[in-house]
Formats: sequence, structure tokens, C-alpha cells
Amino acid sequence: MPTLDQLETPVLTADLDAVERNIAGMQSYCDEHGLVLRPHIKTHKLPEVARMQVDAGARGLTCQKLGEAEVMADAGFDDILISFPLVGEAKAERLAALARRVDMGVVGDSAAAATALAEVLARHGLEADFLVECDTGFARTGVQSPEAAAELAALVGRLEGLRFAGLMTYPTLPESGPWLRAAREAIERAGLTVECVSGGGTPTARRTHELGEVTELRVGTYVYGDRSCIANGSVPLDDCALRVVATVVSRPTRERAIIDAGSKTLTSDPAAGATGFGLIVEHPEAEVYNLNEEHGYVDVSACERPPEIGEHVTIVPNHACVTANMHDDVRMHRGGEIVATLRTAARGKVT
Amino acid sequence: MPTLDQLETPVLTADLDAVERNIAGMQSYCDEHGLVLRPHIKTHKLPEVARMQVDAGARGLTCQKLGEAEVMADAGFDDILISFPLVGEAKAERLAALARRVDMGVVGDSAAAATALAEVLARHGLEADFLVECDTGFARTGVQSPEAAAELAALVGRLEGLRFAGLMTYPTLPESGPWLRAAREAIERAGLTVECVSGGGTPTARRTHELGEVTELRVGTYVYGDRSCIANGSVPLDDCALRVVATVVSRPTRERAIIDAGSKTLTSDPAAGATGFGLIVEHPEAEVYNLNEEHGYVDVSACERPPEIGEHVTIVPNHACVTANMHDDVRMHRGGEIVATLRTAARGKVT
Repeated sequence: MPTLDQLETPVLTADLDAVERNIAGMQSYCDEHGLVLRPHIKTHKLPEVARMQVDAGARGLTCQKLGEAEVMADAGFDDILISFPLVGEAKAERLAALARRVDMGVVGDSAAAATALAEVLARHGLEADFLVECDTGFARTGVQSPEAAAELAALVGRLEGLRFAGLMTYPTLPESGPWLRAAREAIERAGLTVECVSGGGTPTARRTHELGEVTELRVGTYVYGDRSCIANGSVPLDDCALRVVATVVSRPTRERAIIDAGSKTLTSDPAAGATGFGLIVEHPEAEVYNLNEEHGYVDVSACERPPEIGEHVTIVPNHACVTANMHDDVRMHRGGEIVATLRTAARGKVT
Repeated sequence: MPTLDQLETPVLTADLDAVERNIAGMQSYCDEHGLVLRPHIKTHKLPEVARMQVDAGARGLTCQKLGEAEVMADAGFDDILISFPLVGEAKAERLAALARRVDMGVVGDSAAAATALAEVLARHGLEADFLVECDTGFARTGVQSPEAAAELAALVGRLEGLRFAGLMTYPTLPESGPWLRAAREAIERAGLTVECVSGGGTPTARRTHELGEVTELRVGTYVYGDRSCIANGSVPLDDCALRVVATVVSRPTRERAIIDAGSKTLTSDPAAGATGFGLIVEHPEAEVYNLNEEHGYVDVSACERPPEIGEHVTIVPNHACVTANMHDDVRMHRGGEIVATLRTAARGKVT
């Protein structure tokens, strides 16, 4: 078996031991607090890792796109939530095709989208679970008040083709608790049952039980960790499984090293609480201060022994999910020995 | 034939009429000034568009990665420059495999990399052209002085396996002219011939002739244009061929629309001289102020009639090259009618 240092660079690698630790740790947290774990596959985009998550006790999967759900259904998973609003006739038809063969859940924050999905599903004699997406403070998608949540829940309760199943929010914030409680109570007063309250996000995952309201945890990044997770304290460096191995290809000055990992390899995503474009494990004092598509610019002025041309460096990316999406495959290793090359089957599924 | 507004979103589209105009315009500029055009395929990553460029008069192609060059060689192109330093045994062997079947050129800024490449090529009885990469002001890769360029040129001149062919810089800046002239003169004093001085970059492309020194133009982005090109004046909006069509999937407030194009679709790359993550053609007064992996956040507060859920919007991305890399295929259209779906054959070639 080849080892990490024998790979041609740049290359995406994942430490399988760390992946297993991360999966076991989050499952154990959920088990301890009676939470359903529904891991988000958008981080790894790999049926093989999804299987590890379900085998460890996850109830089902979360996907962000129909294309991801199609890959996971093809791989044999039978309980999938799509946590992104589905809009448009083509998407409704693809959802119906999925709902015909596996248990599907969807989310939404508008009567327009819910009604359109329900029509198509009902026309096919099918049904999907529907969670009302609630904006509990993140200011992205989601209904804007508990009253609006109750209103949409009531509408969905009357629609053939959708089954009102509960509430969903992202990320779970301290203020999400009271918000979701008010929504649940308003919905229950109207005679509907809130079976599921689904929260998400790795940074706050292990405080989910404190809210009381949340019954299901959707997390993705925890499986790999990344530089953002290090910065927010949710995954320590040793458990950051996903790393890019790159090579120094130019050392034009004492201060500057250029590596063969640019934005096409690492992405331009920032990491909250950290500067630059990734953490170089062997040289934490160096900074990846700029990226072009194929070039990474590293300030090595603080390095006592800066890496020379031809040396490999190992980078913890700022954001695991988008980095995984840049690579057709990922090398899984244990202690540096490659044990599998996995095709990123759900990569690039933009629709 | 379907039309743009019938496509499921998000979807990458290119206006073939604009692509043709851009190719013809740059070729005409090069012809007028006696410059060799060697278009960079990293922008489109498509053999079909590379063919259009060569048919219009381009001498050969520029690639950034061996993987891109392998795709282009497989597609029948026989004159390829790799404008990124190749370091490592595996890459030298892949270069040799390419050099066995097509004319290959490479660049470099170090004796270490040049010597290693030469050894492998010579062992196979092969030869590649070598351009000394010069840092004429961009502070990325490249030797740091004309004297250093002459020194590396002299070394390469003595190496079996590499043929010293000239100089290369990126981007071509006003100060590149005197720098390259000094390097050329120093090299010629040592008895070597500088056949080619290769400059690059779309923003300054049409001022290349003013420098006198540059003989070859490497440009990529000109073929598609992007929001950076609009900001720097190199490609007007009407010639920005590459656009992402997205759908509004949520309108949680009067001010905010969420679209189904996030960083996995548009990338997080900024555009110098513009804020946000792309220009919405139908609503230039709106701003894509944030991206998550699948969500685009649009401030529509300035829109008199903000787009509603289900409406399509057309986005000129900040950076065409990285955006093209996010999509497995691109829909080519004329006047909104789809005329071809092209597989992005050289997408994701990180090595």
C-alpha cells in the first residue's frame, strides 16, 4: 500500500481513524441525550462514509440537493431529508421519483413552494414528510415568526402529497429554543402534531440538548472537521480528518513559498476566527495568505526552516464541505497508509 | 431545442455568439500586432472551445495542469505549454508521456525543478521547450531578477532533455517590458537565443504590443469574460458569455432573496473592483452579499420589483475560470436557445 508521502499532489486525504472517532463521538452524544442523528452528507459526499454513519446508529441522511439524494438512494439508503427548499416543476418530479422508492422528507418556508410540491406528489399518489423551515436567528431561509410557522404548518396539514412532520432550523442557536417552543405550541394548539424538531450545525451540536426543543440533529462537518471547526472549538486539530497534501513548487524569496494548491483545490472560503486559506500542519507559523486558481501563496517568513521546493505540506482546509467537492476522489488512510481511494460519488451535484 | 428559461437550475450557460466574438477579437488583436496567441484553456476547460480558438488562428494551447494537457492531447491538440511549475517524479513522467506524442513546453523558476525534469526527459530520449518564468512585479512565482533569469537560462541551455526557448511572465504589467528586455539582453550576451517571450492576462492583454518585448500572448478569461473583467474594463457585459442561471427559492423578507446558487455553484472568489459574489443581470441594483455552499443571499432592498420565489435570475460570476470548474457541463446557447451541452472534459484536474 502506498503511503501519504508517496502520493502525487495536490491530493485530498482523510484519516479513517479520525473519521471513525468523529462518527462514534457524535452518535454517542446523540444517544446520551435521546436525539435522532441525521448526518448531512454534503461534507463527505461519499456513500461509504454515509454507511459508516448509519451503521453507527444514524436514523437516516440529510442531503442538500436532489442529485445528492439520488446518489444516496442508489446506494441503498432509504430515509433521506433534503434540507434545501425545492422549487420548480423539474425538482418536484425528481422528488416524486425518489419518494416512490425511499422515505423522503423536505423542508420549506413558503406556501408557494409547498403547494407546488404537494400537487406533483399527489398527482403521483405519493407523499413526503414536510418540515417547516424556521429562521431562528441566522437570517437565511425560513419563516420569520412562530406564527408564520404555525400558518404554514396548517396549510401543509391540509395538502394532499405532503405530511406535516415538524420544524427545522439551521443553525441551532441559543435563541432557537424559545422560538421553536413558541412555534411548536402554536402548531399543537391548532391540533397538529410536531413529531420532529430538527436542528443543525457542527459548532453548536453538543449543546443541542440544552434547548430542550430539538429532537433531531443534522450535522455534516463534524465527520471531517476543518479549520473553522478548530477556530470555533468543535473539532480539535487531531480529529480534523480531511487534509490536502500539497507540494512547494517555487521558493522565489526567503519569505514566499508557492504551493500547488490554489482555489481549485482548497476553495476561497474563509474560516471564521482565522486568517488565510488553510492551516499548514507542519508549519503552523506560516500563512497561506492568497490563492489563485492553482497557486497557493505561503508567507514562510516566520519559519525557522521554510519548506523547500519539492517538500510536501499538509493543509487542514478552511471549510471541509466545499473542499471535498473540488476533488473527484479522496484517499482514505490509517496512520499515513492508504487503505482506499473513494470516488466522491455525490460531488458536483448542483441540482 | 430547449431555451435558457426552461433549464433546471442552477445551471452554467455560455453564449456561443459572445464566445465567437471574443475569440475573433483577441485573434484579430494578435494578428494586427504580430503576436502569437496561445489561449489558456483553464477558463473553459473544453476541447470544443479550444478547437474554435486554434481554428481562429491560435498557435497552440496553454494549460495549467498536466491533467488538462492530457485531455487536450487526447482531443488532438499537438502544441501545449504548461504554465505552472512541474515538480516531482510523477509529474516528470507524465510530462515525458505527453512529450512523446505532442510538442510540449514547460516553465520554471528554479534549477532544482528544471534539472529534475530534464533528467527524466533525457532518460526517455525526449525534449521539451523550457521558458524561464520571470516575476516582473506580480510577486507570485518567477525568478527575481533579469540576472537570475539569465543564470537559469544558461543552466537549461546545458541540460539534455530541455531546450531553452525563452521567457515567460504573468501577468504582463507595464513594468514587465524593461524587466524582460534586460533579461533577454543578458541571455543573448551569453550566446543563447530568446525565441519566445510569453506574456499573459486578460486585463492587460490589449496593451501587450506597447511593451515591445512580448512575442506570445497567453490569455484565458477573455473567452468568457466575468465580473472582474467588467470591473477592469477588459470585457463589456454584453460579451460576458458565461452566466449561471439560478432560481429564487426563498423570500423570507422584503429585503432578502435566497437563490439556489451558492459557493458550490459560483465559488467564493471575489472580483477586484466590485463587491459581492456576482452580478445579477436582471437586477443590477441587487447584491449577492453572502454565499453558503448551496445558498446565495441577495439583498433585494433596492429592487423596485424584487424577484419572487420561482423566478430565474442570471448571474455573471466574479471569476469565470473557477466557476467553470464547478460544473460537470455547460449549456451553449445562441440567443437563449440551447445548441449544445458540453461536458467540461478538463474540469477538476487538480494534478
